[in-house]
Formats: sequence, structure tokens, C-alpha cells
Amino acid sequence: MTKSLLLLPGDGIGPEVIGEVKRLIGALALDIAVEEALFGGAAIDATGLPITDETVARACSSDAVLMGAVGGPKWAGQAYDRRPEAGLLRLRSEMGVYANLRPARCFAALADSSSLKREFVEGLDILFVRELVGGVYFGTPRGIEDIGGGERRGVNTQVYTSSEIRRVARTAFELARGRSNRVCSAEKSNVMESGLLWKEEVTALHKAEYADVELTHMLADNMAMQLVKNPKQFDVIVTDNLFGDLLSDEAAMLTGSLGMLPSAAIGEAGKPGLYEPIHGSAPDIAGQGLANPCAAILSFAMALRFSLGETAAADRVEAAVDKALTGGACTRDIGGTLSTEEMGTAIIAAL
Amino acid sequence: MTKSLLLLPGDGIGPEVIGEVKRLIGALALDIAVEEALFGGAAIDATGLPITDETVARACSSDAVLMGAVGGPKWAGQAYDRRPEAGLLRLRSEMGVYANLRPARCFAALADSSSLKREFVEGLDILFVRELVGGVYFGTPRGIEDIGGGERRGVNTQVYTSSEIRRVARTAFELARGRSNRVCSAEKSNVMESGLLWKEEVTALHKAEYADVELTHMLADNMAMQLVKNPKQFDVIVTDNLFGDLLSDEAAMLTGSLGMLPSAAIGEAGKPGLYEPIHGSAPDIAGQGLANPCAAILSFAMALRFSLGETAAADRVEAAVDKALTGGACTRDIGGTLSTEEMGTAIIAAL
Ligand SMILES: CC(C)[C@H](C(=O)O)[C@@H](O)C(=O)O
Ligand SMILES: CC(C)[C@H](C(=O)O)[C@@H](O)C(=O)O
Repeated sequence: MTKSLLLLPGDGIGPEVIGEVKRLIGALALDIAVEEALFGGAAIDATGLPITDETVARACSSDAVLMGAVGGPKWAGQAYDRRPEAGLLRLRSEMGVYANLRPARCFAALADSSSLKREFVEGLDILFVRELVGGVYFGTPRGIEDIGGGERRGVNTQVYTSSEIRRVARTAFELARGRSNRVCSAEKSNVMESGLLWKEEVTALHKAEYADVELTHMLADNMAMQLVKNPKQFDVIVTDNLFGDLLSDEAAMLTGSLGMLPSAAIGEAGKPGLYEPIHGSAPDIAGQGLANPCAAILSFAMALRFSLGETAAADRVEAAVDKALTGGACTRDIGGTLSTEEMGTAIIAAL
Repeated sequence: MTKSLLLLPGDGIGPEVIGEVKRLIGALALDIAVEEALFGGAAIDATGLPITDETVARACSSDAVLMGAVGGPKWAGQAYDRRPEAGLLRLRSEMGVYANLRPARCFAALADSSSLKREFVEGLDILFVRELVGGVYFGTPRGIEDIGGGERRGVNTQVYTSSEIRRVARTAFELARGRSNRVCSAEKSNVMESGLLWKEEVTALHKAEYADVELTHMLADNMAMQLVKNPKQFDVIVTDNLFGDLLSDEAAMLTGSLGMLPSAAIGEAGKPGLYEPIHGSAPDIAGQGLANPCAAILSFAMALRFSLGETAAADRVEAAVDKALTGGACTRDIGGTLSTEEMGTAIIAAL
């Protein structure tokens, strides 16, 4: 049966990098039905909402969804529940993609573009498994209220249940088995009860079902340090939505290859995955042909592998990116001069 | 009037590094009344509590409190409200030290011990102003509850009021005026209402009273990246308790000089300050004479400056540390071979 892919180019450099994915899909001649919808600021401009019910429904009934990027200064004044980010959070939540896989991998050809010394990042290969549909991003009560005397009070709630923790930890343990078999779990169990529950549930699941995997625990502040001090000590890292947001971005930047890094968000087996580059919408360089399409293209490769049943095509795309890079093809962010389209062409030529 | 300093050596390497401060105080021959009390695991062992009411009262009526470090695996099994960290949080809260100043400064003699290339960290001088007595560290409701079906639920509450935000932002703006006059405020206003309130209150205070200071805003995940990419872009950073915990530790590690970094926590004018090295209790090297006493000694210098009215002595201590380092005195963590005591002796000799 023909699989379906929904593209959500979004804002800023999103349409440009997704454009290169479209050209690549054409060149691969795969049996995939590709559709497209408005998302983020682009959807606000057209409909007043960052994502419509119809787009959410299409996403949930596709086999995979590939996003570009959302947001930008143009939509900063939107009401809180109508800003571009609210659309992204709604999509993640309704798709139920609770495990966000964020590889921080250093490409050999790019090891010198890191601010870290080469020996600290060469060969770096960390896989973050970030919880994506819970925690302080979604907890209630939340909001800003007037409390009199010219004072306001802003509240958010960090909340996790046992099963929310276990399902994402399970994903981390399973993935570790196919890698170096080590999982490090990060929380602030020394100051937050939600973090203590996190640690206890991860420990219990490990003992019951994954004793063959090496499990360690690290306080999130210490991990923020250890990622700088000696990033290669890590294999798989599992952590909550908010810590995962900060720590995976920190790790991504260590590689010096931000424009290269893809991500996948997956839920229950058989449900569609949500794929997106790690980089943001980069409004400062949007529309100028300067963006690096590799992260979007590698996110598409993850979609091919995890959601579209096209492992061979995923291998081909990843090999083509490697080959293009090794051959010297580089956009500006990684020290080269190629435009977005020229980089896409170099990858297609390397297929 | 004779000023008073309460020493809380605490656990792990705490007593060793505070020991060097005591020797230094002796050498300085200052008119300061020095007392000492149990804290953290050491207090648990003696009294069952990480800090007693009496110690809290003595801290609040001193002019300054200098801590070593708290915690360690020995006390990991303590009830949640009796663990060493609970004592530290209680002390911070009862002392009302809402502004935690954490300099991330790269010592010229140590620029090569960073994992970052020299050009990214040489001359680095960031001052974090972390909110220390609010946010998710203290918010209620909090706890772990059974919700049936073998499931538990862990909850914490992130909460800030206008005045809690304004008073710490004020400290940041004031300090910026004595430095490069730039403040960057970090939050996740795009997903958390408490972060949106943070941003709005900082902006309003800036407009009303500190328009001469340059103010920028950055999402906390982006800051986690920018600190790696180009740390020298920052001067003063103001952020909440939890983001400050992670981001200031990340920044501290960039310097390659963790064992060198002091911190100060201050509240209302005239109230005592709480001083502590950035590093932890390091149970793995405790009791072996391997710890670097510089962070504790420089924290003592901050106490001299901010709480004890001994500016000249503070200058002398800081100059002595610089001189000792430049003369090649180094403990193991910064590439040397000196013991804790030998390093202390080198600094006293350089006075
Ligand atoms: C855009 C924003 C809502 C989002 C997040 O905070 O999750 C982004 O930072 C990310 O990491 O994908
Ligand atoms: C020990 C712990 C409670 C503390 C914190 O989280 O604030 C520490 O990490 C710090 O930064 O001083």
C-alpha cells in the first residue's frame, strides 16, 4: 500500500529546506504520496490559527509528517494560544509522539567547525530521547493572574505519571540495545519530586526488563557541565521535556553541525512519526538561499526509516549526504559557499 | 563593630577547602569573629537534620555565611525533607538571598584547560544573576501521589510573582552598570506563562528605570546553544532558579576553571550574604587533599567585599590567588600537582 507523507514547510527557512526535500523525493522515484499543508505563522496568516483541525486530522492519518520550522518575529504579538509554537505543541500532543529522538552526531568533515577542540567532538555520537508530550509544556494549572496591588503571578505545572515516564524510558533502552547499550537518565531528583519519580520509575523499569543495558543517573545541572567537559562519555540520554529541550540543544551545538542535525518524534508502534530539523526558522537568513538543507533531508531519511518502511532509500539518502560533504559540498553555516539549492543538487548528484 | 562570619564546611571536600580559608583568615589578621556550625550530611549524622533551627538563626544574625559543599552518596537514602539539599534550600530561603551571583570567568593561566578552543574562552567574563529563592524549587503544590492502578504522579509548581522577578532583575541591571552595561534575560516565554511574565516584568522594569542598560531576551534553549557557540557575547545574564542552575553550570565548565569559581547569594541591603564555591562536594576525591581551595577562597573574598566591609582585604586575597596561579601554583584539577594545603600555602605566601 502506498504510504503517505505530509509536509509542513512552516516559516522562515522552512519552505526553502523542505523545497530541497521535495526535489530529492522526485529524484528517488519512491512510491510515496506526498501532500502539503500550512503550519505555524504561514497558517496564522491564512486562517488565524497556527494549525487547523483539518491539518491535525491529516497529520494523524498520514504515515509520517515532515516539518520545516515554525515561528518568527512577525507573529510575536499573537495571543498565547494562537502563536506558532502553540500549533507545534498541539500537533505533538495530538499525534502522541512522546519520544523525541535527537542525535548529536559530529560529522567527520565538520569536526573543526565546533567551538570545542577536535579531540572532544570527533566521533561524537549521542542520542537524546526527550519526552515530548508531557511535563511543564502541558501541565495544568497554568497561566498569569492578577493578585492585586499591581502584582501578577505566573504559574506552570511540571507533572509526570509513572506510565508517561516508563514508555519513553522503554524507547531509550530499546534504542540503546542497538547502539553502545548505555543509558544515562537526567533529572533534578535532589530538588524536584517529579524528578525523583522519574528516577525511581526509570530504575524500576531497568531492573524489571532492561538489566542488560547499563543505566546511570545524572543531575541535569551536572549533565549541562559534563556535556561540555567530556561529551563522548554519553551514548543514549533520556530526560524530560524541558531538560531535553535545553540539554539536546547544548549537545547539538557541541557538534558544530547544527544545520546537519535531524530529529524524529515517535509514539506507539504503527502511529505516524513527526520529523523535523533541530534548527529553528532562522528569520535572519530566510528567503536568501543560505540555509543548509541537510538537517531537513536527514530528517526525511529518518522518516523513510522509521515510518515509511523504506530502509534502503534511507540508507541511500544518508550515504549521499555523507558523500556530498566528503566531496566538499558545504553551505555557509559549515564553512562553505553553496546555496541551499546547490547543496540539494550536490546531494541528489551523490545518490 | 566586629563583623561576624559563620562557616558551614559541610560534606565531602567542603571541610578541606574551608580549612584553607581558616588558615587564610589567620594570616590576614582581620577583625572578624569567625564561628562554625554543622551543615548537610555532617549535621544529619549529628542531629538527624541537615540544618538545625539554631544554625539557621545564627546564619540569619551573622554578617556573612560561607559554605563548603553539601551532600554525598552516604545520605542518598534520607527522607526527602531531611536530605542535605533540603538544608541548603531552607537556608537560602530563610536568609532571603534571592540573587545568586555566579561569575563564569576564565583565568588567563588556565585558558588551555577548557575543552573549548582558546579563542572562544580567553578573557571570558560572564556574570550570572540567578533567582535563588523562588520558582520550581519552592513552588507548591508539589509531591508524589498514588493515583491507583499501580500508577504514581509527580508534581512540581513553577511560580513567580512580579515583585520576585523585579527584585532580581534590579540586581542584574545594577551590576551591569558596573560592567559592560548589558543584560540578557533567559526564559521559555514561548511555552511557559511563568516565562512570559518573567519577560514582561524584566522589560517593564528596564523601560521604567534602566533604559541606559542594553537589555536583550533569549530563549533558554537557545542560550544553552549560544553559550557553546560564542560565550563571549554575554555580559550579565539574569534568569530563574532552574534555568540558572543548568546554564550557570554549563557556563562555569566552559571556563575550564570550575575549581576556581566562587559565588555569592545576596538579598536586601544590610542582610547577610551566603557565599559558596560553585563546585559540589566531590565525594570521589574527598579527604585526599586533592581539592582545589581557590573557589572557596575566592568566595570568602566575595564575602569580604559584599558583606564584611573589607574591600581592601578582598582585593588582597584576589590578587594573591592570581599571583599564585601566575607563579605556577596549580592543583590537580587545573593541570598541576599541588595538594589542597600546598595550594593554600602558595596563596598565603602571595598575600
Ligand atoms: C519551538 C519550541 C516550542 C520548541 C520546544 O521548546 O520544544 C523547540 O525549542 C524545540 O526544541 O523543538
Ligand atoms: C545542591 C543543589 C540543591 C543546588 C541547586 O540545585 O541549587 C546546586 O546544584 C547549586 O546550583 O547550588
